[in-house]
Amino acid sequence: MAIKNAFYAQSGGVTAVINASACGVIETARKHPEQIGKVYAGRNGIIGALREELIDTSEESDEAIRALMHTPGGAFGSCRYKLKNLTENRREYERLVEVFRAHDIGYFFYNGGGDSQDTAYKVSQIGDKMGYPITCIGIPKTVDNDLPFTDCCPGFGSVAKYVATSTLEASLDIKSMCESSTKVFILEVMGRHAGWIAASGGLAGKGRDEPPHIILFPEIPFNREAFLARVEQSVKDYGYCVVVASEGAQYEDGRFLADAGGKDAFGHTQLGGVAPTLANMVKQALGYKFHWAVADYLQRSARHLSSATDVEQAYTVGQQAVEMALAGKQAVMPIIVREQSKPYRWHIGEAPLSEVANQEKKMPIHFISDDGFSITDDCREYLQPLIEGEAFPPFENGIPKVAHLRNELAPKKLRTPFEV
Amino acid sequence: MAIKNAFYAQSGGVTAVINASACGVIETARKHPEQIGKVYAGRNGIIGALREELIDTSEESDEAIRALMHTPGGAFGSCRYKLKNLTENRREYERLVEVFRAHDIGYFFYNGGGDSQDTAYKVSQIGDKMGYPITCIGIPKTVDNDLPFTDCCPGFGSVAKYVATSTLEASLDIKSMCESSTKVFILEVMGRHAGWIAASGGLAGKGRDEPPHIILFPEIPFNREAFLARVEQSVKDYGYCVVVASEGAQYEDGRFLADAGGKDAFGHTQLGGVAPTLANMVKQALGYKFHWAVADYLQRSARHLSSATDVEQAYTVGQQAVEMALAGKQAVMPIIVREQSKPYRWHIGEAPLSEVANQEKKMPIHFISDDGFSITDDCREYLQPLIEGEAFPPFENGIPKVAHLRNELAPKKLRTPFEV
Repeated sequence: MAIKNAFYAQSGGVTAVINASACGVIETARKHPEQIGKVYAGRNGIIGALREELIDTSEESDEAIRALMHTPGGAFGSCRYKLKNLTENRREYERLVEVFRAHDIGYFFYNGGGDSQDTAYKVSQIGDKMGYPITCIGIPKTVDNDLPFTDCCPGFGSVAKYVATSTLEASLDIKSMCESSTKVFILEVMGRHAGWIAASGGLAGKGRDEPPHIILFPEIPFNREAFLARVEQSVKDYGYCVVVASEGAQYEDGRFLADAGGKDAFGHTQLGGVAPTLANMVKQALGYKFHWAVADYLQRSARHLSSATDVEQAYTVGQQAVEMALAGKQAVMPIIVREQSKPYRWHIGEAPLSEVANQEKKMPIHFISDDGFSITDDCREYLQPLIEGEAFPPFENGIPKVAHLRNELAPKKLRTPFEV
Repeated sequence: MAIKNAFYAQSGGVTAVINASACGVIETARKHPEQIGKVYAGRNGIIGALREELIDTSEESDEAIRALMHTPGGAFGSCRYKLKNLTENRREYERLVEVFRAHDIGYFFYNGGGDSQDTAYKVSQIGDKMGYPITCIGIPKTVDNDLPFTDCCPGFGSVAKYVATSTLEASLDIKSMCESSTKVFILEVMGRHAGWIAASGGLAGKGRDEPPHIILFPEIPFNREAFLARVEQSVKDYGYCVVVASEGAQYEDGRFLADAGGKDAFGHTQLGGVAPTLANMVKQALGYKFHWAVADYLQRSARHLSSATDVEQAYTVGQQAVEMALAGKQAVMPIIVREQSKPYRWHIGEAPLSEVANQEKKMPIHFISDDGFSITDDCREYLQPLIEGEAFPPFENGIPKVAHLRNELAPKKLRTPFEV
C-alpha cells in the first residue's frame, strides 16, 4: 500500500475537546508512517482545502500535539461552510480533487456535527463521481449532542458538566441572597433544537426539591402562565427559583422566545436573549428581583472543567477514525456505543455517513417529566456518566496553559487561487 | 476572662470564598473554648440577629465546617440590609442588645463589603451608647475589590481568575470561528462602580496583540466612535475582536450603557445588559456576526475555579478576626498587606472600621492604558498574584461536592418577634 498524506479539518462550532480528537488523529497517524505520510490540517476547515491552505502538522513537536488534549477551541481554525451538491457546485469538488492530488492526499478526516458529516459524505463520493478515490472518515463532534447513531457526541459531556456545575454554584449563591434580595436566577444555555444541554442543568440537584426548579426545553412549547405559576410556587416553597433555559425555548407556534432575527451561513436563526426575556416576564408579572446569565461560548470552551469521560471519548474517536481508515473503511464515522450506565462502559462502533448526514437526534420525550419542567430518572441515568471525572488542564500564571502551534502552511503547489 | 458566645454573619453579595472565612472563624473559635463558647451564625446576616434566628454552629461536625472551604455561596444566608444610625432607628439597636444579652454574645464578626463594615462599626458603638459592651471585628469580603486599606478583598481573586480563564477560553473559541462566522465576542462582567473585575480579563493575554482586544471600564467614559473604531481595527488586524465589558460601563454623562433602553435592529425592546447593547451597536455599525455572554452569578460563585491565594486569604481573615477579638481589639478589620509582588508575599494588618465604612477604593488611573481600552504593566503586576494557584474542590458524581450543614436554630429566648 502506497504512503498517502492525510487531510484533517475541524468544522462547525468548536468545543472544549475537539482538539483532543485532533490529537487522537495526529498521534495515531504518526504511529503509521508506513501508510500515512503527513497530516495536513485545513486552515479553517474545508475552506483550507479549497484555498490550498494546508497546515503542515509534521512541523509540530509531539509535545505541542499532546497539548491539544487540554486546549479548547479549534487549533487549526473551524468554519461554517457547507458544500453544495456535486451537481449544484461542481467547481468546488473539482478544486478539492485538484488540491488533494497536488498534495497526494489519500485520507480525509472531517471533525464536526451533522452539517459537517454531510460535507464528509459528499467528499467521499468524489472517488466514484470524479475518479479521485479518497478514504473519508467522519469524526463526531457537537455540544448539541444531536448526532444520530452515537450514544453521545464528544463535546457534549464537557458542556453538560459545566452547566451542571454552574447551576449548582449559582443556586448556592441565590439561595443565600433570596431572603432580602434576588429571588429568581435564570441561566441561558445552548441547544438550538434539542434540550440536551438544558437537561444537564438538572444534574445540579437530586430531585424536585433541589434547584434547578425549572428547565425550559425546546421540545416543550413554552406556556407563559404555567411558567410563571411554577416560578411563584418555587419562591413560595423554597424562597427562590432557579431556571435553566435553552436558547431554543419556543412558543407553541415555533417562535423562539428570543428570536434575534439574523441567520447564519447554514440558514439557522441566530439566537440569544432568552434569559433577559424571561427575567422581564417574571419582573412584570411577579415583581421579583432577578439575575440572569447567558453562558454562550463560555460553556462550550470551558476546557478547565471538562469531563474526563468526554476528553477520553473525543481522543478515541480521533484515534479510531485513523484506525478505520487504515482498515480500509470508507464513508463511516466512529460512534460511542453504550454498553451499560452503572458502571459506565462503552466501546467504539461505526455508522455510515450516508445515514448520519443531516439527521438530528431529539431528546427522547420520556427524558422530560410530565409537567415539562424537569428531567426524569431515565434522563439522569443517561447523562450522569457523561459528566464523570475531572480532567483539569495544567495552569500557568493562574490561567490554563494551552497549546501554541506553529501552524505553518505547506507551500502551495497550484497556480490559481480559489474564492470561497 | 469569662466565656462569651460569638455571633458571625455574612452580608451583601456572596462570593466563592466567603464560606472559607466562615470556616476560619469557626475553626479558630473552636480552638479557644476557654474564651469563646458557641459560635452562632446569623440566619441571613444581621437579619438573623434581629429576628433571633441564630444558627448553632456547634451542632456541625468538624468535617462539615471544613467543607465550607470548598463551598460557594453563603452557607448561613446573607442579606442586603443596612442598619440606620442609632438616632434614626434606636429600635433595631435595642433589639440587637436584647438578643445578644439573651444569648450571652460577647463577640460580633461581620463578613462583608463596605456597607457591611458600616453595620459592624455601628454595632461596635452599642457598648458606649447602650451599655452593652461587645467586641466587634469586621471581616472583608467583596468581589468588587473596592474596600479601602486592604490590598485586595477576599472574593475578588477568584472572580479575577474565573474572568481571565473564561476570556482566554472564549477567545480561543472565537479565534477558530472568525474566518467564516462570529467575529466579535463580548463578555459582560460585574463591577458596577470599579473596573477591577473587567481589568482581570486582561490577564488572559500577554499584551496588545492578544485578546481581550478591548476592556471597557466604568472609570473611562464610553465613546461609541472610539469603541467601534477599535473593534473594526481588531477584526482587520486579527480577524476577530474580544471585548470584556464591565456592567458599570457608562457614558460621559453617567448613564449606564445597560440602561440604554431603546429598540434593537429588529424593533424589539432592548432588555438591558451591557453585552447585548454593545453587540447590537457593533452589528448595526459594522455588520459583524457576534456572540455575547453575561457571566453574572456564575463568576462570583465559581468555586470550582477559585484562586488558591484567594481561598487562603479568605480563611486567614476569618481566623485573624477571631485572634484580634481574643487579643482585645475593637472595631477593626483584618486587611491584606502586600509586601511584594514577585514573589508574592503578604501579611495581615488591621484597619479601623470607622475609616473603612462607606469608602470605595477606585482603580488607580495608571492601571488603565492611555487609550482607555486595556491594562498597564502596573495593573498586571498587581493582579497577577491574586489569581495564582488552583484550589479545586472535591467532586462527586461529576459535580463539586459542597457542605451540607444542619443549620439548626438555637431555641429562642425572647417572647417577642421582631419585624425587619
